[in-house]
Amino acid sequence: MRNTWLELPAGTGFGLANLPYGVFSTPGTPPRTGIAVGDDVLDLAAATGDDVHATGSLNAFLARGPAAWRELRAQLTEWLTDDRYRARVEPHLLPRDGVTMHLPVEVADYVDFYSSRHHAENLGRILRPGSPPLLPNWEHLPVGYHGRAGTVRVSGTPVVRPAGQRPGTPPTFGPTERLDVEAEIGFVVGTPSELGTPVPLGDLAEHVFGVCVVNDWSARDVQAWEYAPLGPFLGKSFLTSVSPWVVPLAALEAARVPAPARDVTLLPYLDDREHPWGLDLTLELRLNGQLVSCPPFADMYWTPAQQLAHLTANGAALRTGDLFASGTVSGPRHDQRGSLVELSEGGTRPLTLADGTTRTFLEDGDEVTVSATAPGTDGGRISLGEVTGRVVAHPIREE
Amino acid sequence: MRNTWLELPAGTGFGLANLPYGVFSTPGTPPRTGIAVGDDVLDLAAATGDDVHATGSLNAFLARGPAAWRELRAQLTEWLTDDRYRARVEPHLLPRDGVTMHLPVEVADYVDFYSSRHHAENLGRILRPGSPPLLPNWEHLPVGYHGRAGTVRVSGTPVVRPAGQRPGTPPTFGPTERLDVEAEIGFVVGTPSELGTPVPLGDLAEHVFGVCVVNDWSARDVQAWEYAPLGPFLGKSFLTSVSPWVVPLAALEAARVPAPARDVTLLPYLDDREHPWGLDLTLELRLNGQLVSCPPFADMYWTPAQQLAHLTANGAALRTGDLFASGTVSGPRHDQRGSLVELSEGGTRPLTLADGTTRTFLEDGDEVTVSATAPGTDGGRISLGEVTGRVVAHPIREE
Repeated sequence: MRNTWLELPAGTGFGLANLPYGVFSTPGTPPRTGIAVGDDVLDLAAATGDDVHATGSLNAFLARGPAAWRELRAQLTEWLTDDRYRARVEPHLLPRDGVTMHLPVEVADYVDFYSSRHHAENLGRILRPGSPPLLPNWEHLPVGYHGRAGTVRVSGTPVVRPAGQRPGTPPTFGPTERLDVEAEIGFVVGTPSELGTPVPLGDLAEHVFGVCVVNDWSARDVQAWEYAPLGPFLGKSFLTSVSPWVVPLAALEAARVPAPARDVTLLPYLDDREHPWGLDLTLELRLNGQLVSCPPFADMYWTPAQQLAHLTANGAALRTGDLFASGTVSGPRHDQRGSLVELSEGGTRPLTLADGTTRTFLEDGDEVTVSATAPGTDGGRISLGEVTGRVVAHPIREE
Repeated sequence: MRNTWLELPAGTGFGLANLPYGVFSTPGTPPRTGIAVGDDVLDLAAATGDDVHATGSLNAFLARGPAAWRELRAQLTEWLTDDRYRARVEPHLLPRDGVTMHLPVEVADYVDFYSSRHHAENLGRILRPGSPPLLPNWEHLPVGYHGRAGTVRVSGTPVVRPAGQRPGTPPTFGPTERLDVEAEIGFVVGTPSELGTPVPLGDLAEHVFGVCVVNDWSARDVQAWEYAPLGPFLGKSFLTSVSPWVVPLAALEAARVPAPARDVTLLPYLDDREHPWGLDLTLELRLNGQLVSCPPFADMYWTPAQQLAHLTANGAALRTGDLFASGTVSGPRHDQRGSLVELSEGGTRPLTLADGTTRTFLEDGDEVTVSATAPGTDGGRISLGEVTGRVVAHPIREE
């Protein structure tokens, strides 16, 4: 580990190899950009005097592009390692437990993929028993769809149990009875692209600034009834939660691994043999504090570079603030599944929690936390932080 | 017709009963808000001196809400009818053929519905021959999905033929061979709503500012291969074109008609007997200038009020600038179909154009225009303007 004048807690996931960006405020002060370091947050607006960090979202800084991202990261490292900067920087460190975190990015378009083979196969088995678990297109392209950007919220946002149409003859309207989670990783676009110009998969790091943890809350009964033929809509659009800290892609160099072997020859625009962007992140899914799953991101069939290349292959433009998520991360083992519908086999095999209660789907009051870590460039582990949310009962009102 | 000091062309669709909002510029001047009146545009930024009209999009004005919309509409009517205002207002009228129109609204979330029964049945017959043309959910809820907000562009934007994966064994990558149009009506949200608070269908006019014409360009081969199970993605996301003039909902009072009879009892949140929002708009679809279809909007099974109620039934928040579109408008007759895949029966029955050439799907160089009109409150017809686009060949590059 690099020397620093900072006193970092032992085993912190927020050492100098991380330096993630977020938007915070303290009582009576406006939201501004900060860097998580140890148990503190560095007030970047105050420390740099650059107004780009005082806008209340990362977008303006992200729009400056990769050279600016690299430059600031190098400067931060210098500030935090060279004792000469201590007097200047230290006054702008605030204890992280005293700040409020905000949505880090004003989300432009939100796309959600479906790139874990294990997840897709598990859902196929559960939803279409007797048929091949994967649909024919799945191995040829990263299946994905657009979600609702306007309901992406920061970790901690209460999860009000949504109402919707539930299957039945006739269908009924009421609070979802199958409220679920999806443990995912999200990728935040900084550099836009022109309409009509695809982004090749080798250009991931030119466009994607960083990574966060995502929980794509899902109402499985609503989703099951509504989704044919145009895909998920209200079963997803009530809330998507993201972790408050965006870890720069530059901090994940040591996490890069080859992608899994593919079963079919990929079309040239998806052929990633020269640009492997597998990422060895480990997710942890906790229900009321109890660890219920450890989904391994390294197993993902499609990488973020392929997702970005696919998403733009038709010439679709990127904007600063675009967020694309991996889809539920599930590994081959039962305790690596990233959603309750998988962990409970479609609601047929309840999980037993430490307090003796059982769960198929979420109950009111349940709290779900997804966190992730990665190997850092200094040999330690870095933290992507966590995304958490507690389920609130559906409000009683006339429907 | 109301008296006015303006000299309006006979039969103009842009009389005092219309007064639609758009964003325009002239050479060397910045984009600002204007009102179409006759063959002119009224420079609203200059005429009012209100900076809200100088922002380059309608969003800031839309965010002021329905009282402000009503107030300005009343003021405009007074200005344009009372001779005392002539000297003040007339200098701010510019010939419309000398201005450039811009995207009127910075689109927040874009949702596309599928609310024409005739369209859904036509597609069902074409795509799933031998099965019931409507899926079981269709009569119970307005099926819809999120599209890409970042590729919504103003009328006139070139339609670069997109590339994508086309079905085959194996699939191939290349320019779409089934480039299609979808004639639709779009609804622009002005007033936002809170996360967790559904918008009842009686509140449409509190939230929706106005209406535009939409062409949701579609690559049918790409769409057919990619869409299961998460819905359309790259087959749509390359471009959605909108007309430059947003007609206030207030201008469509005379167009309101009951919705068609429904075949099933609707759930209470969709029961619109007390809030009928059928709209008697007539669309016209032209291919290279030739009228090929006149889709009747009054036939739509689901109204915009139901679409808005459904879209928010799970508590999803609205933002200023949200755009939701009707889905392809098709009537019962063949010459009322709003897409080429319907007009050509899935590409099996080419249309013959006036020049003797035939079309199943679009060829490079083809120009498509969708326009719409409605009965106005003054007994005449008002125009929603048009959305047009010309197909440009896919650029040759290494894929």
